[in-house]
Amino acid sequence: MWKAKVEVMPKAGVLDPQGKAVQGGLATLGFAGLRDVRVGKLIELRFEAESREAARTLVEEACRKLLANPIIEEYRFTVEEV
Amino acid sequence: MWKAKVEVMPKAGVLDPQGKAVQGGLATLGFAGLRDVRVGKLIELRFEAESREAARTLVEEACRKLLANPIIEEYRFTVEEV
Repeated sequence: MWKAKVEVMPKAGVLDPQGKAVQGGLATLGFAGLRDVRVGKLIELRFEAESREAARTLVEEACRKLLANPIIEEYRFTVEEV
Repeated sequence: MWKAKVEVMPKAGVLDPQGKAVQGGLATLGFAGLRDVRVGKLIELRFEAESREAARTLVEEACRKLLANPIIEEYRFTVEEV
């Protein structure tokens, strides 16, 4: 069994309304000195694969086809055997 | 300047409809052997603080007050000087 941890973040320069909303909320709560907030997704997958290479290939494909929108998001991931 | 990376995930045992939707989507795309998917948030904060301890205190408070719902979500974070 493999576990993948996929991070999907808005690309630098892409408007991140969710980040701006969180930044505004934290400022209202008194969080001084805040310069920037970005909000992305963290996706954990557990799956069967025959090797580390097969596992990485599956996750790469999942990222490209469904988990991330490569126009506006960037992704990175790690896989570990569990 | 400090950078914090906050991971917010649904607690084990809490229904994760977004994870189930992703799992269904990946299965439809032919991702065989998938056992579980969980979807959470990844929040990156950049802010001013006087020390590592002050930085950690600020982020801890942000998590408790706004970033996570401690009833259904768990969080962890790292801070680094940038």
